[in-house]
Amino acid sequence: MKLNHVVESQQFTVPMLMDIFKLADEMEPVMARGGTRDYSNKIVALLFYEHSTRTRFSFESAVMRLGGKVLVTENANQFSSFMHGESLEDTVRVVGNYSDIIVIRHNEMGGAAHAAKVSPVPVINAGDGKGGQHPTQALLDFYTIHREIKTIDGVKVAMVGNLAEGRTVRSLAYLLGKFERVKLYFVAPTHLQMKGDIIEYLNHHKVWFTIEEDLRNVINEVDVVYMTRLESTEREGRTDSSFFIDRELLRFLPNRAIVMHPLPRQNEISSEVDSDPRAAYFRQTRNGILVRMALLVSIFDGCCWPRAD
Amino acid sequence: MKLNHVVESQQFTVPMLMDIFKLADEMEPVMARGGTRDYSNKIVALLFYEHSTRTRFSFESAVMRLGGKVLVTENANQFSSFMHGESLEDTVRVVGNYSDIIVIRHNEMGGAAHAAKVSPVPVINAGDGKGGQHPTQALLDFYTIHREIKTIDGVKVAMVGNLAEGRTVRSLAYLLGKFERVKLYFVAPTHLQMKGDIIEYLNHHKVWFTIEEDLRNVINEVDVVYMTRLESTEREGRTDSSFFIDRELLRFLPNRAIVMHPLPRQNEISSEVDSDPRAAYFRQTRNGILVRMALLVSIFDGCCWPRAD
Amino acid sequence: MKLNHVVESQQFTVPMLMDIFKLADEMEPVMARGGTRDYSNKIVALLFYEHSTRTRFSFESAVMRLGGKVLVTENANQFSSFMHGESLEDTVRVVGNYSDIIVIRHNEMGGAAHAAKVSPVPVINAGDGKGGQHPTQALLDFYTIHREIKTIDGVKVAMVGNLAEGRTVRSLAYLLGKFERVKLYFVAPTHLQMKGDIIEYLNHHKVWFTIEEDLRNVINEVDVVYMTRLESTEREGRTDSSFFIDRELLRFLPNRAIVMHPLPRQNEISSEVDSDPRAAYFRQTRNGILVRMALLVSIFDGCCWPRAD
Repeated sequence: MKLNHVVESQQFTVPMLMDIFKLADEMEPVMARGGTRDYSNKIVALLFYEHSTRTRFSFESAVMRLGGKVLVTENANQFSSFMHGESLEDTVRVVGNYSDIIVIRHNEMGGAAHAAKVSPVPVINAGDGKGGQHPTQALLDFYTIHREIKTIDGVKVAMVGNLAEGRTVRSLAYLLGKFERVKLYFVAPTHLQMKGDIIEYLNHHKVWFTIEEDLRNVINEVDVVYMTRLESTEREGRTDSSFFIDRELLRFLPNRAIVMHPLPRQNEISSEVDSDPRAAYFRQTRNGILVRMALLVSIFDGCCWPRAD
Repeated sequence: MKLNHVVESQQFTVPMLMDIFKLADEMEPVMARGGTRDYSNKIVALLFYEHSTRTRFSFESAVMRLGGKVLVTENANQFSSFMHGESLEDTVRVVGNYSDIIVIRHNEMGGAAHAAKVSPVPVINAGDGKGGQHPTQALLDFYTIHREIKTIDGVKVAMVGNLAEGRTVRSLAYLLGKFERVKLYFVAPTHLQMKGDIIEYLNHHKVWFTIEEDLRNVINEVDVVYMTRLESTEREGRTDSSFFIDRELLRFLPNRAIVMHPLPRQNEISSEVDSDPRAAYFRQTRNGILVRMALLVSIFDGCCWPRAD
Repeated sequence: MKLNHVVESQQFTVPMLMDIFKLADEMEPVMARGGTRDYSNKIVALLFYEHSTRTRFSFESAVMRLGGKVLVTENANQFSSFMHGESLEDTVRVVGNYSDIIVIRHNEMGGAAHAAKVSPVPVINAGDGKGGQHPTQALLDFYTIHREIKTIDGVKVAMVGNLAEGRTVRSLAYLLGKFERVKLYFVAPTHLQMKGDIIEYLNHHKVWFTIEEDLRNVINEVDVVYMTRLESTEREGRTDSSFFIDRELLRFLPNRAIVMHPLPRQNEISSEVDSDPRAAYFRQTRNGILVRMALLVSIFDGCCWPRAD
């Protein structure tokens, strides 16, 4: 099997993940020097039905670091405006004639899968709707743990904040759930705790997890603190110290552990933390380029699955 | 004569058209491989005074397939906003210092001709106003007929839908009218029939045409069915079966014939038609890249007119 | 010292200016041919917190003429929207992971200096707020005088229009004030005359200047007429002939002199003037590309300061 569409996290097996991460490691010198592989004739279309400058920049940078070019719209619904009324299918078929890969950000769940069904070129899901997937974010989060902690086996991860709605923590729980000896600590106010579907999934896969209401109870025993924003009504200045990290609390975090955040942050991580070597959230952003380069190369080359050995 | 500005369909003679189409055919392997000709130091500015993501993507892709780079704005009126009040002339003079070709999409008829008058670099009209021209669309439509039917001589073309206001069908009628033995079938409700100026033009050139009110009356005798949208008030669900094509009707279309559409479509072509090999509308989109690459190369190289022989 | 951030005009010493201008001269053939230096693996992020298509196009063109690539947003506040609430610091740290240089246009004075403090890559100020700086505009204005008049020493410059609020004339006065024998003529209605801070600065540096209320009084004795727009309330059709130039008045301008304007103009320069060889405002625009190429090369190469000799 050659890597074609990237639609949801579940499509990646553990050997595929390891292959992608190996390739991501190899992208490090390519990013620095540029152009050792020649993808200068490749065009990647970024078809965004909603604005996401951060995700867009990350994909654009990955394409450019490989030497390729981008076609970009953050108003893809102008293809299918009221006046024109074009279907997503037709838009994807047309844009597939203009490009070699389509990176799609859709405002509705299932948008990317829908696109993949009719596209003449490979489709990468860059987020589809609130309840949908964002598999490249999940991959880069997972890659960051793999790269910083050196192993996934037995890793202990605290997820903090709005776990009920956070797409990143939900996807990451999914991926980590593929590894039996992983331990998960869900730290959130009761009404924002991890939902039943993930809990069932972890029970089914016999992954150990615990429900917590205060980061201070668990910080001293974890390898990863994955921070996220709380819900918007709690965003105005007030910060619940149970879901907050500052230099004070950092004293209790083991030396080999890291602090992650999908960004943008609000005030759940004090800026004092930034200068600590365990603050991994900006490196995490950088890892996003490497993982996306690896995915693009896998698709362009069709070289990775089945593995040669 | 070297190709400089591309402002209106009328500027192309039959030998020029044939040269461009020959060049467009040569662009096929360039599009696939990229970079056999080196235009990597060329910058094409896309100066759009109104949004047209489809046309923009097609031009951008054509430039990139040649190795070139693009400067893009779909808010070109920000150059000449109320606060600044810059004239189109000044904007074009400035942007001509930043680029090697200007592709302009203007909201007023005559905008491109106006720009061409003062521009220090060649200008390509990418559509100017409702009553204006869109010559590269006309060229790609014409190229599609030439490429699919193999000849223009004696070709029989049905144009269907809103012929009164449809810029594409009007321009295509203009170009086809240069060939005496062509036969045209205008299929539209009476109030949306082809206007007097085109009728007079065809009479003057002794081109055969007929007025029809139902596609079903002519589909069995034509080489090309060129579908377009009906007017907006008729767009809400209701489809008049006289101006509609589905698998049922397709049975009557000759085997060597094709169905074209400038896209976006609404419901005038059933999606059942898509899988039929005679459905040429997505290939038509792709031909747009080839024709635009050919125009760009003609301008960059200044190689095509007068022809060497 | 290697050139790193470009934040304000004051950071450039006279030897630095001369080095940049020498480098800008060298960019002329690079602009024409493209690609003699290889910056094809470089990515420049244009982080614009407000629209400025003109400045954006100029920077993009400069990057592309060097072979580099651009990441662009003119809605950079979408990184830090209400919903997300990201700080400028975090945005710059993230974008610094995606690019090799950040060109920032901020809506608040001091925005660029703020960004430079935390950025992992060099920052170039492309304008920060009404009262802020726009150092690359100042450099290109100064370069234009240097290139057209051949010397700065003893040059006589009339500045005309809204001097109180005009960012370009204020910055230019600053730079010219570094040269003692320069003579400045401030031509403006009383309520729009050059402000006290510049006057004090010039007095302190013993630079000769005079206050005028009519361009006709001084045009016959200057080397440069630097025109700017008057304030918006006076923009509607009425043009005060004291701050206006047409072919009639041009008869009094010395042959070796030039007319400059930062553009966009309104009606303060009659279009009759455009064809006169002394009309330098479109060449000035073009010089902007050369100066920006020179700055980018200085940063990429880190080659210019300290000078080798």
